[in-house]
Amino acid sequence: MEQKFRIVIDTKGGDNGPSVMVKGAALALERFPQLEVLLAGDERLIQEECERLRMPAQRAEILDAPGEITNFDNPAQAVYGKTDSSLLRSLDALSSRDDLVGMITCGNTGAALAGAMRYLSGENRVRPALAAILPAQSGGFTCLVDTGATVDCTAAMLHHFAHLGSDLMRDMYGIKAPRVGLLSNGTEPTKGNKLVKETYPLLSADESLHFIGNIEGSDALSGACDVLVCDGFAGNQVLKVTEGTAKRMMTDIMRYAKKTNSAEVERLFTHLMGVYDIGSLGGAVILGVTKPVVKARGNADERAVVSVSEMLLNTAQHKAVFDINRNQL
Amino acid sequence: MEQKFRIVIDTKGGDNGPSVMVKGAALALERFPQLEVLLAGDERLIQEECERLRMPAQRAEILDAPGEITNFDNPAQAVYGKTDSSLLRSLDALSSRDDLVGMITCGNTGAALAGAMRYLSGENRVRPALAAILPAQSGGFTCLVDTGATVDCTAAMLHHFAHLGSDLMRDMYGIKAPRVGLLSNGTEPTKGNKLVKETYPLLSADESLHFIGNIEGSDALSGACDVLVCDGFAGNQVLKVTEGTAKRMMTDIMRYAKKTNSAEVERLFTHLMGVYDIGSLGGAVILGVTKPVVKARGNADERAVVSVSEMLLNTAQHKAVFDINRNQL
Repeated sequence: MEQKFRIVIDTKGGDNGPSVMVKGAALALERFPQLEVLLAGDERLIQEECERLRMPAQRAEILDAPGEITNFDNPAQAVYGKTDSSLLRSLDALSSRDDLVGMITCGNTGAALAGAMRYLSGENRVRPALAAILPAQSGGFTCLVDTGATVDCTAAMLHHFAHLGSDLMRDMYGIKAPRVGLLSNGTEPTKGNKLVKETYPLLSADESLHFIGNIEGSDALSGACDVLVCDGFAGNQVLKVTEGTAKRMMTDIMRYAKKTNSAEVERLFTHLMGVYDIGSLGGAVILGVTKPVVKARGNADERAVVSVSEMLLNTAQHKAVFDINRNQL
Repeated sequence: MEQKFRIVIDTKGGDNGPSVMVKGAALALERFPQLEVLLAGDERLIQEECERLRMPAQRAEILDAPGEITNFDNPAQAVYGKTDSSLLRSLDALSSRDDLVGMITCGNTGAALAGAMRYLSGENRVRPALAAILPAQSGGFTCLVDTGATVDCTAAMLHHFAHLGSDLMRDMYGIKAPRVGLLSNGTEPTKGNKLVKETYPLLSADESLHFIGNIEGSDALSGACDVLVCDGFAGNQVLKVTEGTAKRMMTDIMRYAKKTNSAEVERLFTHLMGVYDIGSLGGAVILGVTKPVVKARGNADERAVVSVSEMLLNTAQHKAVFDINRNQL
C-alpha cells in the first residue's frame, strides 16, 4: 500500500473564512491520493462542510479549536495567551504527533513565526526565516529568503539563510546542489551595501554551499539561482515589487482585452494569470524549524490550499527518499 | 519670440556610439521648437552627422572633446585625469555657461556622479543622489530616490533625498506639494527596518514636506506617491525587479503571440512596449547639484535622447515659471 502523508490545515485566520479552507482540503484530497488532512477549527462547522463536500472521513480528521488569533492580536502575547486558538492547537499537534508532516495557515504572520519558534524549535534554537518560492522563467523555482521575518540582518544571519534555503530546495525539489545567489546592486564581487560585502566572503568560503556570486534584482525571477539570499527588508521589496508590476501589467492587458473585444487577448490573460497570479501560489515557508509550516496569504483561496498541499507532500516524499539514500551510502 | 533652452548632450560613453546620440538630438530638435543643443564629442564626426541629418546649424553647437571616460575607468581617477573627455568638457560647459540648462550622458555612472559633484556642487556641498522617474499607473510619474548612488544610508540622508525628490517633482512636473512616501515592508508607522524607523519621525516632523507615510513595494508603480524615498540598495532592487518582471512578462506575451499567430496580441505587445520599455524612458536624474544632469542607460537609443530632452525642457520651463511666481508672491 502506498504511504500516506497527513498535513495540518489551520482553517481560521484567513480573509475568506474556514469554508474556503475546507473546500481547498477537499480538492487536494481528490487530487492527491496519498494525502490526508487534519482540519483545525470549529468542530461543528468543519463537520458540516466535510459532509456537504462528501469528504472521505478516514482521510479527514478534525481537531476542535474554538479560539482564533487575528491580525489585530500582538503575536508575542497571543502565542502564550490564546492556547485554544486553531493556530496554536495546530502547531501543538504538528510538534507532538509523528504522523503529521507539515502545516498550512493563512493567519497572523508574526504569530505563526513566534508559534513555530515556540513549538517547533530544534535543539539549536535559531530565529526562523520566511522563504518565498517564486516561479522561475527557466521553468523551475527560486527560493527567496528572507522575505520579512528579520528586516535588520547580520552577515551571519544571511549565511544561515543560505543553508536554510539550500536545505529546502534539496528537500522540496530534489536539487542536489542548489545554486545560491546573493542579492546585490551589481554582479561584481565588489558591489553591494555593507551587509552584502560582509556576507560575500562567508558564502564564498563555505564549501558546503554552491555559491555562484551576486545576483541583481532584474534576475530574481529568471532562474539564475535556486536560492536567492537577502535581508528581510530587501526580500520583501523583491516580492512585493514583483507582485505590483505583474498586477499592473495584468490590469493593462485586461483593459486592452475589453477595449478591443479580442478573444485572443482574453485567452492570453487567462494564460498569464496561471503563471503570475501570486494569490494561487503557495505562500511563504517558515524555515529553521523541525517541520515545514507554510504561511499562505491572508486572502488565499481554495487553489492555494491545493498548491501548498502539493508542496508539503513533495517535501515529505523527498525527505523519505533522501533519508533512505543517505542511509544506503 | 519664444524663449530658447539649450541642453548639453555628451555623445560619448554609450553602447550605441555617438551617431545615435546625434540622431536623437536631431529628432528632439524637430519635435521641440524651443530646444537647442550643445553636442560634445569628436568635432569632425559630429559635424558630418549634423550635415547628413540636415540639422539647423544655429540650433546645434559643437564642443570638441577628443577623450572619453569608459566603464572601465575608475570614476574618482578619471574625474581628475581625463579632462579632455566629453563627459568632463560637458560638465565644465554646463557649470560655466548660463545659457545651458541641463545635460544628458550615457557614460560611466560613477564618473557622472563624481563629475557632477566636482563641477556642479552648490554652496552646500552634499553627496548627490540618483533619482529614477517611473511611469505611475495613475498616469503621472513617481520619483524614486535613491536608486544606487549611496547604498548605505543614514536617516539624515533619506530626509535629504525627500527634499531633493520633492524639488525635482515641483520643478519638472509642476506639482505644488509632492506627496512623499517612505519605502517600507508595511504601511503601518511601526513597520520598517532600523533605518526606516529612524527616518519616519524626521519626515513626519518636517512641515515643508508633504509626507504621507510608509509605502510598500507593491505600490511603487501605482502612483500612490510622487516621491518614493529609500536607500540606494533598496531603490536599486525596486528599479531592477520592476524591469525584470516587465521584461519577463513581455517575453511571455511575445511567445504567446508567435504561438497563436494573433495580430491582436502583437498589437497588445507593441502597446505595452510603449509603456514598459524602460530603454526608451529617460534614465536617472542626478540630484543635489546646481543644474539637472540625466544619466541615461548605457544602451540608450535615439528615443531616450528625445525623452530626456523633453524632461530637461520641462524642468527649465517650469523653473522659469516658478521663479516668476515666487517673486510675485
